[in-house]
Amino acid sequence: MTERSTDLAGAERAYELDRRHVFHSWSAQEKLDPMVVTKAEGAYVWDGAGNRYLDFASQLVFTNLGHQHPKVVRAIQEQAAILCTIAPGTVNDARSEAARLISTHTPDGLDRMFFTNGGADANEHAIRMARLHTGRPKVLSRYRSYHGGTHLAVNVTGDPRRWASDAAADGVVHFFGPFLYRSAFSATTQEEECERALAHLEQVIQLEGPSTIAAILLESIPGTAGIMVPPPGYLRGVRELCDRHGIMFIADEVMSGFGRAGKWFAVEHDDVVPDLMTFAKGVNSGYAPLGGVAIGEPIYRTFAERVYPGGLTYSGHPLACAAAVATIHAMEDEGVVEHAERLGREVLGPGLQALAGKHEWIGEVRGTGAFWALELVSDRATREPLAPYGASSPEMAAILAACKTRGLLPMANFNRIHCVPPLNTSVDEAREGLAILDEALTEARTSAG
Amino acid sequence: MTERSTDLAGAERAYELDRRHVFHSWSAQEKLDPMVVTKAEGAYVWDGAGNRYLDFASQLVFTNLGHQHPKVVRAIQEQAAILCTIAPGTVNDARSEAARLISTHTPDGLDRMFFTNGGADANEHAIRMARLHTGRPKVLSRYRSYHGGTHLAVNVTGDPRRWASDAAADGVVHFFGPFLYRSAFSATTQEEECERALAHLEQVIQLEGPSTIAAILLESIPGTAGIMVPPPGYLRGVRELCDRHGIMFIADEVMSGFGRAGKWFAVEHDDVVPDLMTFAKGVNSGYAPLGGVAIGEPIYRTFAERVYPGGLTYSGHPLACAAAVATIHAMEDEGVVEHAERLGREVLGPGLQALAGKHEWIGEVRGTGAFWALELVSDRATREPLAPYGASSPEMAAILAACKTRGLLPMANFNRIHCVPPLNTSVDEAREGLAILDEALTEARTSAG
Ligand SMILES: Cc1ncc(COP(=O)(O)O)c(C=O)c1O
Ligand SMILES: Cc1ncc(COP(=O)(O)O)c(C=O)c1O
Repeated sequence: MTERSTDLAGAERAYELDRRHVFHSWSAQEKLDPMVVTKAEGAYVWDGAGNRYLDFASQLVFTNLGHQHPKVVRAIQEQAAILCTIAPGTVNDARSEAARLISTHTPDGLDRMFFTNGGADANEHAIRMARLHTGRPKVLSRYRSYHGGTHLAVNVTGDPRRWASDAAADGVVHFFGPFLYRSAFSATTQEEECERALAHLEQVIQLEGPSTIAAILLESIPGTAGIMVPPPGYLRGVRELCDRHGIMFIADEVMSGFGRAGKWFAVEHDDVVPDLMTFAKGVNSGYAPLGGVAIGEPIYRTFAERVYPGGLTYSGHPLACAAAVATIHAMEDEGVVEHAERLGREVLGPGLQALAGKHEWIGEVRGTGAFWALELVSDRATREPLAPYGASSPEMAAILAACKTRGLLPMANFNRIHCVPPLNTSVDEAREGLAILDEALTEARTSAG
Repeated sequence: MTERSTDLAGAERAYELDRRHVFHSWSAQEKLDPMVVTKAEGAYVWDGAGNRYLDFASQLVFTNLGHQHPKVVRAIQEQAAILCTIAPGTVNDARSEAARLISTHTPDGLDRMFFTNGGADANEHAIRMARLHTGRPKVLSRYRSYHGGTHLAVNVTGDPRRWASDAAADGVVHFFGPFLYRSAFSATTQEEECERALAHLEQVIQLEGPSTIAAILLESIPGTAGIMVPPPGYLRGVRELCDRHGIMFIADEVMSGFGRAGKWFAVEHDDVVPDLMTFAKGVNSGYAPLGGVAIGEPIYRTFAERVYPGGLTYSGHPLACAAAVATIHAMEDEGVVEHAERLGREVLGPGLQALAGKHEWIGEVRGTGAFWALELVSDRATREPLAPYGASSPEMAAILAACKTRGLLPMANFNRIHCVPPLNTSVDEAREGLAILDEALTEARTSAG
């Protein structure tokens, strides 16, 4: 390990090389000042100067088990000793076992796993499967969603990251999903929002032509776009519309899956079985790149005798699959999903609601499990966001800075703060994070005058 | 590691679970009988029954260092112990060092690395960068090429894998590259082929409209499509056309890079510096999923102050980057690129030519370094391929079966056999492979009558 070290000089060198040679995602390269991370454990990370931070973002909402879980680290090391890599056309025991284990947790019938490297390619392949299975071209997806960074995945995405590469083509049509706080349907209750959102979707289907629509792609709970837990019955309603029109229902559980929402998969909240379900992130806590599509029997049958025209070099990579096996075992053995559910119900939910009682900027608290958003507004009556759609603001920057100074790293998106810690964050750690957020909101509000 | 073992029962269970739960790339799922791999070392792999095979395919042409190189295994284990994963927005020493090391081998000026998980997403992002940098929509790529399995990557691809998902859109235009043996230009010499292929490309540029073309995307040596080493001057001619028309030259070195062609990158054979260069596979021998785009200064400058609208959760994954660092060090320390060059010049090239002297089916031998193709024909005069374009044939199946029985796994594509062993395959191993291929060709020809 020449030229690497975890001391201060090492951190400085890593920073300097990063600035000279690493091109960063979603960024203007010379407006960055990225934090050096030299060490991480559980819910904490340390920067180059030795400061410790509580990670309320689970990085990009993927370290569901926190950092350096010993069982997963050991599984990777053991797999590395046996067999680091093998082509996707072979049989590999780590891959077989990962597929089996995942199938024990996916909704009924989603028993076949097509492995990818991440969430974007999982969605790309799910869309191709749906198109070829139905013989139809279009994909419907919602505004306020994120599905990945490759060309098709970013085009089905419904957030501003799509704009720059949008072809307004590729057979993609966006519709509105349920989001009562900023209702697209002038609804005033969750029931109304649900009903109207389904009626809207039904109209879109009618007007686009049911026989042209291959799939409806939906995050079971939209994540980066705002953690809008759908009202009860919405996903069931979408399922029904899909059934009625022979449309495939693709649930994107890349962020909401593997315990994040207090269930193994968020579709369970509405008792829904999609035709295809994509996953990544939590499947192995991101310890090695892995994503995939869980495939139901009808679509599997389409490709039983006929070639599925898609693939990738690292499909079912042994290191990534071994990490998944260990992650899922750890989640089972340590009751991680149940813990996340309780954390949401007993600590994060009530704690964030209590903050809303104190801080005028908090317009709404939304979430479940370890998956929470604060919708921040400059005016509760008008619901004017504290930062414009697609941008930040001095107020948002001040909150984040005040959090960081105090050792907390939440996730921020436009006018929202997301509290999405590792699922196995302890109650004390969660309370520590909430207390810091409380102080940070006070400080930022005070300095905003 | 419950429920995993390397014994026969373990192999049987892995096979059974695979058939029940693993969905395979580019396949009809129930027409498969995949080989269980229980062990691998260097250029050899072992199946579930304990049979040993010489891997003349480097899996999917990615294990450039062979299997289980001890330095790379150790680097992965050490990185796992320190820090398995971290978000792309941070600075990480493994990522910084991988980017620096890669930049010491890329052509001059390609000093910024955008890391992806594999080759397809590298090409997708390279195309986006070129489009945004030039403000132009179209991408030109060649027939007989492969660029990946995601929607845009498979659309720029020029092989039959594109057909099923082809939108004939997305601003993609295919042209013909140089391939003397099946010349699209009725050429009879390499010089003529080169000249005519460049004249053809110039016409395509003119007729599509130079001001509409963002990029020309080319495998420096098309790999899966047939290892057609371009005639000297061709890539330089493409560079010149690009310069004349403000078009970005994207070199896809996913397969041809990192020593495969006997140079660090195959563009060096023609002394060309592309604007963007994509890589994957050999960068870390596939020990963990990694790909990337090496970015030249002009395109980097475009995204210095302006956001690059693209990214992915696992960009610059520490495990994958640590594997890259160790792989590149091993390649440097052990003279792997030089060895590959000599292997091609002294063993594989002459050895395959000798086979061509004996076996009527061999229409042409092409290649360089550890990157060789046999073009098989049923008739040398008409050059009728031994299997149709996009398919296999009983003759091809017989050759492969005869190789496998004797313990050799070459790569097959339509009417071609590719000999693409790990770069550090010993001379004796390479000779062993050639001898088996010799016998297999004799047996298959004899049984074909
Ligand atoms: C819901 C959802 N889908 C897809 C993706 C894309 O995953 P990746 O970044 O691994 O390509 C993300 C990433 O944040 C996501 O949150
Ligand atoms: C030249 C080339 N480009 C791109 C790719 C796609 O790489 P991946 O399978 O990692 O997406 C490949 C894979 O074989 C390739 O050979």
